[in-house]
Amino acid sequence: MNIVSKVSKVRGLVRGWKKEGLSVGLVPTMGYLHEGHLSLIKKCREENDLVVVSIFVNPTQFGENEDLSSYPRDLKADSALCKSAGVDLIFNPSPEEMYIDPCAYVNINGLSKNLCGKSRPIHFKGVCTVVSKLLNIVTPDRAYFGEKDAQQLAIIKKMVKDLNFDVKIVGCPIVREKDNLAKSSRNFYLNEEERQAALILSKALELGKDYLKKDNNVNHLKEVIVNKINSEPLAKIDYVEVVDSLNIEPVSEIKKDILVAVAVYIGNTRLIDNFTFNGGRR
Amino acid sequence: MNIVSKVSKVRGLVRGWKKEGLSVGLVPTMGYLHEGHLSLIKKCREENDLVVVSIFVNPTQFGENEDLSSYPRDLKADSALCKSAGVDLIFNPSPEEMYIDPCAYVNINGLSKNLCGKSRPIHFKGVCTVVSKLLNIVTPDRAYFGEKDAQQLAIIKKMVKDLNFDVKIVGCPIVREKDNLAKSSRNFYLNEEERQAALILSKALELGKDYLKKDNNVNHLKEVIVNKINSEPLAKIDYVEVVDSLNIEPVSEIKKDILVAVAVYIGNTRLIDNFTFNGGRR
Repeated sequence: MNIVSKVSKVRGLVRGWKKEGLSVGLVPTMGYLHEGHLSLIKKCREENDLVVVSIFVNPTQFGENEDLSSYPRDLKADSALCKSAGVDLIFNPSPEEMYIDPCAYVNINGLSKNLCGKSRPIHFKGVCTVVSKLLNIVTPDRAYFGEKDAQQLAIIKKMVKDLNFDVKIVGCPIVREKDNLAKSSRNFYLNEEERQAALILSKALELGKDYLKKDNNVNHLKEVIVNKINSEPLAKIDYVEVVDSLNIEPVSEIKKDILVAVAVYIGNTRLIDNFTFNGGRR
Repeated sequence: MNIVSKVSKVRGLVRGWKKEGLSVGLVPTMGYLHEGHLSLIKKCREENDLVVVSIFVNPTQFGENEDLSSYPRDLKADSALCKSAGVDLIFNPSPEEMYIDPCAYVNINGLSKNLCGKSRPIHFKGVCTVVSKLLNIVTPDRAYFGEKDAQQLAIIKKMVKDLNFDVKIVGCPIVREKDNLAKSSRNFYLNEEERQAALILSKALELGKDYLKKDNNVNHLKEVIVNKINSEPLAKIDYVEVVDSLNIEPVSEIKKDILVAVAVYIGNTRLIDNFTFNGGRR
């Protein structure tokens, strides 16, 4: 397994592979890998000749008062995990390697204005820009993203389509702890009490799923989820939303594929979770 | 020579070429080809195994009151010119093939705020987006742009660097009519009287060059050019600017590579012209 920090080195390696007709898969990450990432790597390993994992805590997707400096990093542990998962190349650039007096950027209208885009206004501009850069550097045949970041996944799919990137975007299901907390590098921030309180996200979403077995009123669905989350004293809702899963626009009726998404502060830690539901299948 | 309108068809052809290890050059145009374009195609022909010319009047780079609908089009003549210039593939998509409910876009800060960016505020966002799309569709080894659109060339070079597109951007010198008018598809709009008046752009720039042989005061340089243009009753100045040729920021002293650029309305037709000057070589 190679670990490289230079764009030119990655390009050289990938060019060699492509010349041999080998397929390349990319798993973009911010590191501090957990089983969610490993599920992406596993899928990527199955579908491609070569597996590239990028590990880069991208500064441009963090707002001023967000957790860029405290975001957990552990390249040594990440490398060991990647090696045993059969990764061929880790791309671990410095911020200076990625951004030299940057002027150009990629952004998206529409899909970025709700959910996380509301409370993190520059976030998806940073995500679109860094993912575009990674796609141009690695030129993968396929790139893998988790469904936990459902809005990010929808945005990247739309961006790839709109800008004609020649890559297949593959979404992979949320991986959960035994007690159903969605795996996240940010779970690392939680103390014991908060870790317990954080279960309210998946619990509330389960109640939402139960509601949808019986009924389909969007406001009632939200109410069920909001009330459950508010029953947890350590939880503070950022949003509880029901949107079209493709264009991330709020829906007033549950007719087609919807995304039920929540963002909740547990203490100072902002966690997200979601599920999708095919309203057309009722 | 192939003429195709579908993205998927271009991809298929290019993939075949790349598999054989052949190099691909792209000349992006809006059609109505003149000798300026042909000089790009010639250079592209010399440096690459395969030559792709895109012909697409890109709606997203025209402002509301600009000349999108009247912009001259002649695919038949363009095809004949391309064929005799040894072009392998013309990509001539419809607006619908390029833009389906578009949300994602590429834009650039800094370099787009002066010169043409001032009077055409959405222009370079449209240019950056369509060039990104074309680069992703054709995946050329080299792409060719004229130095007449000097700001566009600087912006595309910076965009390619910032977003890590794996392509070499090649700038080619301005091609002029015998009487020194810079070749442009928009010269087509000029009536006989305006055609004569349009010579004021190159004449004024020549006076500027003469001035720089003797002296190097930025304000005086601009004055020389402005006064000359204003001596032509049909001319109305949009801008006369002296900027750093890399970052397109106005300079107050002529020390390094500068761009002296003008945009002038001749009647209703907006024409541009420029020259670069190495201030460090004085």
